[in-house]
Amino acid sequence: MEAFSDGVLAIAITLLVLDLAVRPPGTPLEQFLHAWPSYLAYVVSFLTIGAAWIGHHALTDRLDRVDPVLLRLNLLFLLVVSFLPFPTGLMAESLHQHTDAQRVAAVVYGVTLLAIRLSFTVMDVYSRRAHLVSASVDDPDMDEVRKKFRFVIGAYLVTILLSLAAPIAAVVLYFAIAVVMIVPLRAVIHAFSSPSTT
Amino acid sequence: MEAFSDGVLAIAITLLVLDLAVRPPGTPLEQFLHAWPSYLAYVVSFLTIGAAWIGHHALTDRLDRVDPVLLRLNLLFLLVVSFLPFPTGLMAESLHQHTDAQRVAAVVYGVTLLAIRLSFTVMDVYSRRAHLVSASVDDPDMDEVRKKFRFVIGAYLVTILLSLAAPIAAVVLYFAIAVVMIVPLRAVIHAFSSPSTT
Amino acid sequence: MEAFSDGVLAIAITLLVLDLAVRPPGTPLEQFLHAWPSYLAYVVSFLTIGAAWIGHHALTDRLDRVDPVLLRLNLLFLLVVSFLPFPTGLMAESLHQHTDAQRVAAVVYGVTLLAIRLSFTVMDVYSRRAHLVSASVDDPDMDEVRKKFRFVIGAYLVTILLSLAAPIAAVVLYFAIAVVMIVPLRAVIHAFSSPSTT
Amino acid sequence: MEAFSDGVLAIAITLLVLDLAVRPPGTPLEQFLHAWPSYLAYVVSFLTIGAAWIGHHALTDRLDRVDPVLLRLNLLFLLVVSFLPFPTGLMAESLHQHTDAQRVAAVVYGVTLLAIRLSFTVMDVYSRRAHLVSASVDDPDMDEVRKKFRFVIGAYLVTILLSLAAPIAAVVLYFAIAVVMIVPLRAVIHAFSSPSTT
Repeated sequence: MEAFSDGVLAIAITLLVLDLAVRPPGTPLEQFLHAWPSYLAYVVSFLTIGAAWIGHHALTDRLDRVDPVLLRLNLLFLLVVSFLPFPTGLMAESLHQHTDAQRVAAVVYGVTLLAIRLSFTVMDVYSRRAHLVSASVDDPDMDEVRKKFRFVIGAYLVTILLSLAAPIAAVVLYFAIAVVMIVPLRAVIHAFSSPSTT
Repeated sequence: MEAFSDGVLAIAITLLVLDLAVRPPGTPLEQFLHAWPSYLAYVVSFLTIGAAWIGHHALTDRLDRVDPVLLRLNLLFLLVVSFLPFPTGLMAESLHQHTDAQRVAAVVYGVTLLAIRLSFTVMDVYSRRAHLVSASVDDPDMDEVRKKFRFVIGAYLVTILLSLAAPIAAVVLYFAIAVVMIVPLRAVIHAFSSPSTT
Repeated sequence: MEAFSDGVLAIAITLLVLDLAVRPPGTPLEQFLHAWPSYLAYVVSFLTIGAAWIGHHALTDRLDRVDPVLLRLNLLFLLVVSFLPFPTGLMAESLHQHTDAQRVAAVVYGVTLLAIRLSFTVMDVYSRRAHLVSASVDDPDMDEVRKKFRFVIGAYLVTILLSLAAPIAAVVLYFAIAVVMIVPLRAVIHAFSSPSTT
Repeated sequence: MEAFSDGVLAIAITLLVLDLAVRPPGTPLEQFLHAWPSYLAYVVSFLTIGAAWIGHHALTDRLDRVDPVLLRLNLLFLLVVSFLPFPTGLMAESLHQHTDAQRVAAVVYGVTLLAIRLSFTVMDVYSRRAHLVSASVDDPDMDEVRKKFRFVIGAYLVTILLSLAAPIAAVVLYFAIAVVMIVPLRAVIHAFSSPSTT
């Protein structure tokens, strides 16, 4: 399960770059200045899939065994993650269009980010309820991921509402959420306070 | 053989998202409402490759050894699976075209889905006839896959015929078939009736 | 080395499908009838990468160790293989253009196929001259690959010359060469003459 | 970490070929003659990712363990590497445009190449400062990579400045730098001076 999932996540994260090909008209510098939200969305999508990969590894490492249901839940999770390049591309394109198109793109984008979080939570909850995890293992990385979840899901819901009024401001907020998700606060503090522990 | 096959299946399943880039003209909401069969075809293709991956793993796990013929049959299976993004894209494009184009797309799509099933069956039958599988192993997942096969192949043949008359209705039927294939009925019943077994 | 190479080969073989997106104008059936050489080129490229993968595995399985030079020769081999989707796409496009474009496409295509064979031979020869292979191992699969080589390289050279006069006939010949390369004659005869050996 | 990284690097290196699809108008031969810098940029990008992969392996092989910070630094490295197909495509496109566009493309391209080197150096320095590497291991491949670094980073800075004046000459220089990076001088000398050591 891990090899296939790693493959899908690796491909989804790399395909994101193809969506940057859509560029507005104008001189090269104007293009870069005008298209910055699409570059930001690219980074947000990259960090979100990266965080999903880290969380997925923390989860699969704790598994004793895999049952057919978890295999399908994993497929559902991969479906949502591998769909992400599409709304990321929508965001990039919508910049040259009406605010209406930007609004739809930002909502679809936010809902996809939320769905990635939720499908991961379903896998996590199911694997514990079906006793697939080794009870003895207590991964602090997994705990941190789980703790951040309530905050992140709430933040997504607020940002999706906001994106109806201000789609580009929403992308900036999604970026902030992605940074919160990816930065391992506890580990960073630990690493820089005691760099000599082995 | 498994690493390469996993790679091809993972890439084919992730490339599907690129075909969603083709969108009809109109306001964003109109586009989404009009393009729903292409989203459905995306999900059908995803589930079909997902089911192919699950079946492929159940098969390769039971293998004692691999011979040159099976290696080539596996390549044939991968050829058909990795071709699937093309008819999926054909379906997405044909929505903005005449019913004639939709009909051709739906038939090519159905024949590809059928070919995935058949090429898998060839691998399965060959590996047993050439005594490549461990006789002692009796995988219930594999048995369920095999039991569903006669039904699924029949259902595909009927749907291919139907798609000549009603191409979009056929996509809905392909979706129903994919759901039947992917949902592990026995395991779902088992998991929810006895969630405490370890 | 094997995981990365498997990845590149798996991706190159799956990206081939993207080149089929280029289609001539006309009714769907006319398109399919007119575009058959591009479908044939797709199958040729798929079989060529498939054969390259089988040969690459036979080679890497025999290696005792890897040295920095072989690592770079492997990269060169992957460069040529991962380039193949480009001339395959050129072939598909050139069908709607003048014979002149078809000629250039067919020559570039043939030279790429030849370069895949030659870069593989360089790896094979180097690994034996630098004593990287286990002397005791004697892989019949590898021997068959090597025996077919002189014939295949000669056949490529003849077909490249022919493609200047008749580019589409050349694609048919490339297909014939690919079939000769991929079909494991010895193993097929063995498998069907003695299906009960374990 | 290695499987996912290998996947991303393998995909990024293979996606490069998609950027070659953009071709100038004209007869096939004119196209090939006019587009040579885009083919050169393709080879430069391929060799740069190839060298990044070799360096990444030399680094991960020396690791005793992975901490959350290195996991994120690795993600940053993959972000920059998987971004490379975009400036490579920019270079290919800019050939049919004004020198202004070529200048922007060449600068973005050079900065991305530099960022790949720098993000790798950050990983390398962090892994040693956080005592994640086995102290006993002394990989000559890694040492050679590190020795070449000061030279390569300086060469990139000079070439980025040059690319403002002569973008196409800069591509030729990037190619020269890539060749210096990828050719394992010490190993080549060793392999050809003593081909009989086992």
